[in-house]
Order: sequence, then C-alpha cells, then structure tokens
Amino acid sequence: MEIREIRIENLDTQDFIRKKASELSSAVGDGLAVNALSGGVDSSAATMLGHRALGDKLKTYFVENGLMRAGEPERIVALFAGLGVPVKIVDARDQFLGALKGLTDPEEKREAITRVFYRDVFGRIVKDSGAKYLLQGTNYTDVEETVAGIKRQHNILEQLGIDTQEQYGYKVLEPLIQLRKSAIRKVANALGLPEEIYGRPPFPGPALAARVIGEVTPERVETVRKATTIVEEELSGSRAFQYLAILHQDRVTGIRDGKRDYGLQIEVRCWESKDAKEGSPTRLPYELLEKLSERLTGEVPGVVSVTYNVTRKPPSTIEAI
Amino acid sequence: MEIREIRIENLDTQDFIRKKASELSSAVGDGLAVNALSGGVDSSAATMLGHRALGDKLKTYFVENGLMRAGEPERIVALFAGLGVPVKIVDARDQFLGALKGLTDPEEKREAITRVFYRDVFGRIVKDSGAKYLLQGTNYTDVEETVAGIKRQHNILEQLGIDTQEQYGYKVLEPLIQLRKSAIRKVANALGLPEEIYGRPPFPGPALAARVIGEVTPERVETVRKATTIVEEELSGSRAFQYLAILHQDRVTGIRDGKRDYGLQIEVRCWESKDAKEGSPTRLPYELLEKLSERLTGEVPGVVSVTYNVTRKPPSTIEAI
Repeated sequence: MEIREIRIENLDTQDFIRKKASELSSAVGDGLAVNALSGGVDSSAATMLGHRALGDKLKTYFVENGLMRAGEPERIVALFAGLGVPVKIVDARDQFLGALKGLTDPEEKREAITRVFYRDVFGRIVKDSGAKYLLQGTNYTDVEETVAGIKRQHNILEQLGIDTQEQYGYKVLEPLIQLRKSAIRKVANALGLPEEIYGRPPFPGPALAARVIGEVTPERVETVRKATTIVEEELSGSRAFQYLAILHQDRVTGIRDGKRDYGLQIEVRCWESKDAKEGSPTRLPYELLEKLSERLTGEVPGVVSVTYNVTRKPPSTIEAI
Repeated sequence: MEIREIRIENLDTQDFIRKKASELSSAVGDGLAVNALSGGVDSSAATMLGHRALGDKLKTYFVENGLMRAGEPERIVALFAGLGVPVKIVDARDQFLGALKGLTDPEEKREAITRVFYRDVFGRIVKDSGAKYLLQGTNYTDVEETVAGIKRQHNILEQLGIDTQEQYGYKVLEPLIQLRKSAIRKVANALGLPEEIYGRPPFPGPALAARVIGEVTPERVETVRKATTIVEEELSGSRAFQYLAILHQDRVTGIRDGKRDYGLQIEVRCWESKDAKEGSPTRLPYELLEKLSERLTGEVPGVVSVTYNVTRKPPSTIEAI
C-alpha cells in the first residue's frame, strides 16, 4: 500500500483529527488497543488522538527502561494525568540494563534495546492484555527511512516477528503515518498538548543509551543523565533543532586537586536543521559554551573535559551512535 | 645546588650567550659533546649555542622516532644545515613503533617512549661516540615541574640510570636551565634562529604519540599527522599559545556515500595561555572552526567528526594524554 504524505501547508488540523479519530474508532470497534508513550512528540500525539477516539478502549503504558532523562517517567505520567489520560508505568529497568551489560558495539546495543522492548516487555503487554490493536506514532519520515534502509523503527510488526494480520491477529494503527514531524507538532498542539511536549526537540529511540559511547552501565547512564539535564537547561533557550550531551569512552588527562587525573569527556552537540536530513552546528556564543563547560566539569562527577561538535551533517550524523 | 632563575626582564641576551658559550668551552675543553635536536625552541637554542661554543666538538643528532610531524626531520636538518650546523638523522622508527605496539595506557606509552629514547637510542649514541658531555636544553620550568613531581623530562642522567659523574664519567651541560621558555625564545632569536623556530608553539616530548588516544600504530600516527598539518596551517595565524589535533579511539557514526559508517573523530584544541600553567580555549571564529572541520573530514581518510575543546585548564590540561 502506498502511503501519501499530507504536507504541512495542506494540513487542516481539526479536520485531520476528526477524520483520524473516526477511523480509529471504526477500526477498533468494541475491541481493545494498547500503546507505548515515550513522551516524545509522535507518541504523545498518538496517545492523545487515541484517547479522544477510543477512551477506555486504549491502554497506554510508559516503559521505564532505566535510560530516560532525569525525572522523565514521573513528569510525563503526571502531565498526561493532568490531561485526563491515565498512563501505567512498566518498570523494565533491570531487563534493559541487563541486556546491555558488556555490550560496546553500537549495533549490538541498539539491537538489544529493540529486542527487550518489542519482544520481552511490550510483546508481553500486548499478549497479556488481549489487545488486538497496537497504536503507534509512526511518521512519514520513519517510512521513508525504513524504505531507504537508513533506520528501522516503529515497525513493531516486523520487529515482533509478526508478519501479517492473518498470522497473528494483531492490527497496527498508525494515524500519523502521512505526516512529518513539523505537521505532527501542529496536530499535537491542536490536541491540547502543552508546548513542552509539542515543541520538544527529537530524542532518540534508544534514549540515553544512544548518548553513551561504549558500555551502557547504570553509572555511565547516570553520568550522561546529569550532563543531559545541564545541556537541556542551558540550551533550551537557543531554539535549536536539537541539543545533546554524549559521554565518551576515551579518557583524557585532567587536573584534580592539583594532580593529574584521567577523567571523562562530554561532547556537546547543538544542531540547526529543518528535518534532520542535513544539519549544521549552532554558532553558540562562547560565553554559553564556557558556562556549559564549567557546569559539566563542576557538577558531573569525573568529567574533566568538554568539547563542542563543529561538523555538519553529512558527514556527521545528529547523534553519535 | 640551587638553580636561580634569570627573569626575562633581567636578561641581556648577548651577554648571556657570551658567558654561556665561554662556560661550555671551558667545561668541554678538548673533549667531545653530543646532543639531540628535536626542532623545538629549547633544543634548537641549545644546539646553536653549543655549536658557537664548541664547533666540531659537538655532534648533533635528530632522532627520527616515526612520531614527528609531516616533513619535520628533513625540514629541521635542512634549516640547521643552512645555519652551518650539521645534524645527523638517526632512524629509530622501528624501535619506537615496536615498543608502542599494543599499548593503550597513556603512562605505559609515555614510559615506552622515554625508555627507547634514553636507553636504546640516545644511550647508545653517547656510548659509541665516546662523548663525555651531554648537552641539553633543560629549562627552568622543567626543573620546577620535576621538583613538584608533575613531569620528569630532560633529566637524562636519571633516566639513563646514570646517577653521578663519578660513577659513569658523563657530565650533563644545561646552559639554558636558568631561563623560562619566553626568555629562551629571545636567546634563540639572538642566536640567529629564524622565527619559525624561536616563535614555535610548544610540542610534546612524546610527539604525535601524545596526540593519539589508544594504541599508537603507524596508521593512526599517519592520521593524526595529516590532521596536525591542517590544524597548524589553519591556526598558525591565530597567534594562539598552542594548537593541536587529537585522534580519538572512540568511533562515532558518520555518513559516507549516503550510508551509515562508524568513523574517526578528531578533537581540536587551541589555547590562550602565558605559561601553560593555566589556559583558556581561544574564541576562534565559527567560520574558521567550520573550515577546519571541512578540511579534516574531507582530507583525512576515515574522519567523520570534529570537535573543539571548550574547557579551561584546569580542570583540563593542554594535551589530552
């Protein structure tokens, strides 16, 4: 089936929401649907749209994988509770961190996270609930990139090993699949989500594991989590497309208490981009870079060095892993 | 014996040169002295002063360790030949690169280089030549830092395991030991060395091995050598205290020919400093950082990412290793 993009300039958000809610309602009927909310723009919009269409017939879960930003699960659940949408937290920290233990290869890490999420955690939720429908926030860029072989995400059927509806009886519902991110932001706004959600910079599927070069241990996640909080605090005012902190595996020489010490390095990236296909580093004022460095070396234990990415995409990518 | 600093404001370069040349001449008499020239300010000034005082009684060697910057041995030897000073190149590339094979710990790498230089290579030169005198460019900061336990360099007697003159019959001659770097630059200028020598930014003793995080292989040295050429070309006009390229061991995602590729990252550092004790990153224009990134990713095979250091010393250090 060919999927046709609805371009942002042709999007009537209220009309789109009415139409998609109606389609979801017809599709699910008296059945039950489930979805996973991550707090990103896509899954947040899908959750709001799903609840408007299905009410109690949609069960929403937040999978706590131990790789989230500081305070994220509680914050997202509270925010949706305030909007009248109940979200259940599934504590799967041990499963994710256990599967990541000892892995340093980026592809193996990515694969472990996908496997635990779709097979072990979300796969079980779907089966235990008896749901016949999976609601997902798949967007048009995901489809394009999957076809191009660049990344494979949100493609839950395939990743579950579930090939067709005939074989397993699940149906995937993807109401946002004709929209790109900027259009989804408009829909999210129209659905009543606050700007802190609809205006959110993109965040990677593997969460903070994508921001740790080398092995992902609870200690290293905690280091990059602290760094992420600082970078987001300092750069949210920049209005950049995306900004992130990366914990390197390489150690570099620093000075602690007047003596040499091999410490940690954090790389900061901040991007100007329209659609993530191409990007250039934001020309942040040096005062801000120096403040970032002071906070990161002063507040994150073990960090002695901070660098700023100055390479465009391509040949770089937005994330380091 | 207490060594007293001659401060730059009290330095009469011509008087200093006459006095030190006379002392060297008296000390060596009819004997033979040897020295190693690296092309840095200190060893270049010691070489010129030594030849003015001793003429043919000083034999000067350039140890090619395979860790030098592009074209460096030939360039330095030609430059000194033009000044009437013959310098013999000692090819010790295999010894250095062999000793570094498999080592990733910074301390072990540093120790291997020191051992090969002083024991295997220069130790043999001293013994084979029958020289009774070693001329060295030790400066006042080296003495201070050795006493403080920060670094131990130029201390050839101790590193050779040669403790006293009585025991081995060698005498170390250190005519620049009362001067700091800025004063040595003035002396180097007065000795007729060109600005490209007396105005040179500092360069680490372990040479490009200090600019490679992880194992130092011929391929990785070649990568950082290419990067160093570009960084020095682009930043020599900045008049900064020091500027350098560091090859990381961590790999990061890049895009090559439209596909994902885990490639190399180069970190650029450029320092404002008076004496290397403290330093701050130079506020380079973004146009220059972007040009550096374009050249490094375009001209150095395998490089997909370039970062710029934004941390002060302390808690960072000038070099990464």
